[in-house]
Amino acid sequence: MFDAVKVKNECVAWIRSFFEESGKGCNAIVGISGGKDSSIVAALCVEALGKDRVIGVLMPCGVQQDIEMAELLVRHLDIKHYVINIKDTVNAISNAMPFDLSVQSVTNIPPRVRMTVLYAVAQSHNGRVANTCNLSEDWVGYSTRYGDSVGDFSPCSFLTVQEMKAIGRVLGLPDILVDKVPIDGLCGKSDEENLGFTYAELDRYIRTGEIDDLQKKALIDDKHQRNLFKLQLMPSFKPDLM
Amino acid sequence: MFDAVKVKNECVAWIRSFFEESGKGCNAIVGISGGKDSSIVAALCVEALGKDRVIGVLMPCGVQQDIEMAELLVRHLDIKHYVINIKDTVNAISNAMPFDLSVQSVTNIPPRVRMTVLYAVAQSHNGRVANTCNLSEDWVGYSTRYGDSVGDFSPCSFLTVQEMKAIGRVLGLPDILVDKVPIDGLCGKSDEENLGFTYAELDRYIRTGEIDDLQKKALIDDKHQRNLFKLQLMPSFKPDLM
Repeated sequence: MFDAVKVKNECVAWIRSFFEESGKGCNAIVGISGGKDSSIVAALCVEALGKDRVIGVLMPCGVQQDIEMAELLVRHLDIKHYVINIKDTVNAISNAMPFDLSVQSVTNIPPRVRMTVLYAVAQSHNGRVANTCNLSEDWVGYSTRYGDSVGDFSPCSFLTVQEMKAIGRVLGLPDILVDKVPIDGLCGKSDEENLGFTYAELDRYIRTGEIDDLQKKALIDDKHQRNLFKLQLMPSFKPDLM
Repeated sequence: MFDAVKVKNECVAWIRSFFEESGKGCNAIVGISGGKDSSIVAALCVEALGKDRVIGVLMPCGVQQDIEMAELLVRHLDIKHYVINIKDTVNAISNAMPFDLSVQSVTNIPPRVRMTVLYAVAQSHNGRVANTCNLSEDWVGYSTRYGDSVGDFSPCSFLTVQEMKAIGRVLGLPDILVDKVPIDGLCGKSDEENLGFTYAELDRYIRTGEIDDLQKKALIDDKHQRNLFKLQLMPSFKPDLM
């Protein structure tokens, strides 16, 4: 059985020691989407560092339908926050391109702009950027390389969705944030509809190797293999100088 | 003695095998600054893949004094190229910030915007982004995390400045590009003036451990230690689930 209290406490202690070693007195900068992952990371940072050392950054692109979820979180945690709309920046970069952008390009520009915004906040507020990925999404590559997949420290990238939810409840976060169904802002489908399997199936497979549907197993294995590079350092040529 | 022909040939073979394994038929996308590093990386990619599979991307921010150096390179290699000015994007992101940006923030926004542009080009042109860092600059952290420090493959990040220059000559690049003194576009000082030691001193120290001036040794060691994190994956909390 997953001991959510124990893992939560260990994660909080880990965040404290990261800041002791790599950012004494620094602030945690957390991009707040209004989903469970960023809510949980922000709450973990508040418990580790105190609410005065956590800054939430809301980054809608134009009008964000569920922005009130992000606002609920920053009110609930009572943390300082900024709302920084990335629409003009995304438009500027898209307009500067002298060719037609592929769908994949259009999907990945906003996460990279958000990374740039988070670092601008961090570098102006003595901050360290929190990564808010979880293990389940990382497993199948559901993130943008050098966008939402990066940061200075990652409290939850080895916790599955089910484990995250258990930790969210232990942290006393509102159910509406913990249970929010992740929706791809672009196409309006849920993550699970996009992926072709449920997080419950994926999480069981990650932790036990067990899965009933062999087609889903093949789908997961394929996504995992094709996206592993996102979690690794880029390959480099190393000359043999002997 | 550094055998520039041998190392150049091995690097070319390494680029070929990277594309064989991780991007069969893909194009190399190289940000072209007009300095030696991007010139050498572009030339290596041309030798590895052929000039039809290399796309140069010139990314001035407003007016770039030495843009003709970048144009000379793309003419010399006869590669397809785009000029994508990042000024409007940098302005949009800066204007969106509801606080005063620190000097450090202002310095690091353009490299992160350039990374975003390079990936937009790559994802619209079946591309892989070349990293253009060298070992000497990486050693002392002379790059922006998740900006110019990243990419999909890195041909030269284990070659010192002196080794790069030798390879540049073997590749037959114009002397004016190989010998161009790296200037920090922001303050107009040369890199060496900013750093407080020469690349010749640094390179000798990296390869042999020898350096005459102990103050410079301390300066290099300090920069190296404080910037190592840029070359590593972000630290992650790993729960003990046993």
